[in-house]
Amino acid sequence: MFKKVAIIGPGLIGGSMGMALRRGGLADEVVGVGRRQVSLDQALRVGAIDSATLDLAAGLGGAELVVLATPIGSFAAIAPQAAAAMAPGAVFTDVASAKVSIIESIAAALASRPDVAYVPSHPMAGSEQTGPLAASADLFGGSVCILTPVDGTPPEALAAVERMWQSFGAELVRMTPAAHDRLVARISHVPHIAAAALMSIVAEETMHYCGGGLQDTTRIAASSPDLWMDIYAANRREIQEAIGQYIEGLRRMTAALERDDRDALREELAAAQRKRNTLSDMLRQRNP
Amino acid sequence: MFKKVAIIGPGLIGGSMGMALRRGGLADEVVGVGRRQVSLDQALRVGAIDSATLDLAAGLGGAELVVLATPIGSFAAIAPQAAAAMAPGAVFTDVASAKVSIIESIAAALASRPDVAYVPSHPMAGSEQTGPLAASADLFGGSVCILTPVDGTPPEALAAVERMWQSFGAELVRMTPAAHDRLVARISHVPHIAAAALMSIVAEETMHYCGGGLQDTTRIAASSPDLWMDIYAANRREIQEAIGQYIEGLRRMTAALERDDRDALREELAAAQRKRNTLSDMLRQRNP
Repeated sequence: MFKKVAIIGPGLIGGSMGMALRRGGLADEVVGVGRRQVSLDQALRVGAIDSATLDLAAGLGGAELVVLATPIGSFAAIAPQAAAAMAPGAVFTDVASAKVSIIESIAAALASRPDVAYVPSHPMAGSEQTGPLAASADLFGGSVCILTPVDGTPPEALAAVERMWQSFGAELVRMTPAAHDRLVARISHVPHIAAAALMSIVAEETMHYCGGGLQDTTRIAASSPDLWMDIYAANRREIQEAIGQYIEGLRRMTAALERDDRDALREELAAAQRKRNTLSDMLRQRNP
Repeated sequence: MFKKVAIIGPGLIGGSMGMALRRGGLADEVVGVGRRQVSLDQALRVGAIDSATLDLAAGLGGAELVVLATPIGSFAAIAPQAAAAMAPGAVFTDVASAKVSIIESIAAALASRPDVAYVPSHPMAGSEQTGPLAASADLFGGSVCILTPVDGTPPEALAAVERMWQSFGAELVRMTPAAHDRLVARISHVPHIAAAALMSIVAEETMHYCGGGLQDTTRIAASSPDLWMDIYAANRREIQEAIGQYIEGLRRMTAALERDDRDALREELAAAQRKRNTLSDMLRQRNP
């Protein structure tokens, strides 16, 4: 499918893409581009890439597909360099978990390269871990990948990137960047903030007593603060609005508790239970 | 250890206790007392009890240990009946996940029975499931069980109940009922409300896109609304205070995001990450 694919940042997501590309025989060569040799060595060792380089221009040269999979915070520095280094007619995709502001900055960097096709992706997969050692060729199996094509995205480039994600086992969904950001604020970004805030009310010395409930509820609070901070900054407006709704929901329940309104409280909890059961059913269908 | 143990409500917790008592040879006879024959039949079928009865007085007659393991909401009706039916010198324990208000109502019911020893317990184990079919003799292995002895709790009765929980593989902790309620509001009750409130901001039609983060964070929202409503009512004051602290934490993070104060935001997230890693370490030590 591709002769050469360059993955900038072959970590958890980028490395998993490399593994899946190699396993599926979708690329003759997968090159990892990074800033730290030790990470690239890990990516080589786990079979995420065929070769590695610290030199962005060398890595991107001749690549038909370039994947930007570094933390969002480094995009502003890397995108202009990538724009300068890409081969004529290359397809460029990113995997950022916020879209509107990221697309704006990448589109600006690519303004000088009308020959390059930009296909924004967001694979809804991952874990609280990072780095190539956590990568897996199966990471995207049974997950959803959201594509948010922009005005200039050529249909054939979009189709090529979609075929790639499909071959990884992901289910594809297209939506606008704005709809994407609104969605992920609610199903991903605020849940992380909620988990982090829960840890803030648990005293260090009482942690010994914690059970499975808190363990599950706060698992994503173990994720990298730097990664998340950049995601928050990139999707600030939608997150603010979603947190407002979340606090409103908490206040509704507290108010019902305060006035001992058991019917109202039961209705809130029953609605949450119904929705959570729907979620379980959907996840079971997706990963039988 | 015991000739006869009566378990009022042999569901997830009570049924698991019955299984563990029988497996460990700690009781010659475990009697299940319930209100619905179908549940008692399930408890018999899964081996949680030796015999079953719908007749509370018959079930409790001659029992050296009586376990109250029904939902909290039924305590007010059952405790006076149990007080009238218990054998002379019996030991009585409950497994409620709120203590101050529950102890108050049980102590009032037991006022006429100074010969009965009351040992309040709270096994910190369970799941979002309920009923005897979810019970397991291993449920308490590696968990913490909090004992909150009251003024009248005789040391020998406390020791007998502690030996029982220890034989189930639970680690024992003693604390005051007030300290218990303060603790569980933060590590158990507010996390459940937080999970339920998260479901309230996720639209039904977007659930299809949800991934592992939301799945973990909201798992406990699948629990029974009725069970939780009664727990909330029984620990209202501490829950109100803990939710206040939780909302405060959310507001601190939102404010930092609003003014783009990355240092403050990073510090909040990093503190949450450190604590969550400590929690992981502790849980690994407890269940290696």
